[in-house]
Amino acid sequence: MQLLENRIISDGVVKAGDVLKVDGFLNHQIDVSLLNKLGEEFKRLYSDCTVNKILTVEASGIGIACITAQFFNCNVVFAKKSKSSNIADDVYSAPAYSFTHKNDYEMIVSKQFLGKGDKVLIIDDFLAKGSALNALIEIVSKAGAELVGCGIAVEKQYQGGGDNLRKRGIRVESLAKIKSMDEKKGIEFTD
Amino acid sequence: MQLLENRIISDGVVKAGDVLKVDGFLNHQIDVSLLNKLGEEFKRLYSDCTVNKILTVEASGIGIACITAQFFNCNVVFAKKSKSSNIADDVYSAPAYSFTHKNDYEMIVSKQFLGKGDKVLIIDDFLAKGSALNALIEIVSKAGAELVGCGIAVEKQYQGGGDNLRKRGIRVESLAKIKSMDEKKGIEFTD
Repeated sequence: MQLLENRIISDGVVKAGDVLKVDGFLNHQIDVSLLNKLGEEFKRLYSDCTVNKILTVEASGIGIACITAQFFNCNVVFAKKSKSSNIADDVYSAPAYSFTHKNDYEMIVSKQFLGKGDKVLIIDDFLAKGSALNALIEIVSKAGAELVGCGIAVEKQYQGGGDNLRKRGIRVESLAKIKSMDEKKGIEFTD
Repeated sequence: MQLLENRIISDGVVKAGDVLKVDGFLNHQIDVSLLNKLGEEFKRLYSDCTVNKILTVEASGIGIACITAQFFNCNVVFAKKSKSSNIADDVYSAPAYSFTHKNDYEMIVSKQFLGKGDKVLIIDDFLAKGSALNALIEIVSKAGAELVGCGIAVEKQYQGGGDNLRKRGIRVESLAKIKSMDEKKGIEFTD
């Protein structure tokens, strides 16, 4: 999506340690008018599908999930991150690892809010190695819900998480796919 | 706001320990169409004001802040919660206490995204004793920005946080104000 690629070029900052900062418009300050364009594009991409629930994970997925949900006329459920491995009976959970915070955590969703008959679109702001996305997919599976696909704003494709999922037959639509990224050479997108 | 009060009565659950669970529509599963009504009401209440930025705090404030921002045509900034008291130079910070998680934390906002000239509406889902809201207000003040007011979905008025702020001359608009709450007797709203 050209609009998002342009915004990443103009306002994103590549930092040492393979970090892309997009906190000026996506995950600290949020440009809600941009999110509306992204949500509209997710709707166009998944226009052939029935979606009755959008699943995301706190915190930075929530904004884009809520704006996107307006185009699908559906509710959002956001998974919570729990440091405790002592998980209650009334939730679905799956382990994940945060490369940003360098810690393991459990992703949890109340059994009340996800189950059989749900047709789920997973929305998130970032996809790199896919740890968070894999955990969300595991939760959808445990709940007996149907996974329609995933909608990602920025995929760092060279880290392989998205393509691993595609090889498993999971539909992953990313609006900007980064092929390579370097502090000096800048960002190259996949065509 | 009758619509929100009705929803709290029908879908909220009062639990022991002064807990009101609204995770079916507000802060785990999110009813985005309801948020749109709340956002529209915040706009009506603050229609006499210029707002160029909405400030909230992760995680459950983000959805309502993003939807509300559509009515004000402005960006959202969400404060992050940091457990570390070792705060970087490039952020504004203020201490807060979570009664839910029973821990102290620092609320932080990058200096890049809040400053002089900003006219800030703070939006959050809950107000009880006001610890989080006080920290957000302190950050607005440290940034040299102008606080227009606060918009809260559910205020547990009997806990005093909102009225303490009003006594300080801060405008606080809450869409549902709970006067009293009890597992057996249910919920009573302020007129």
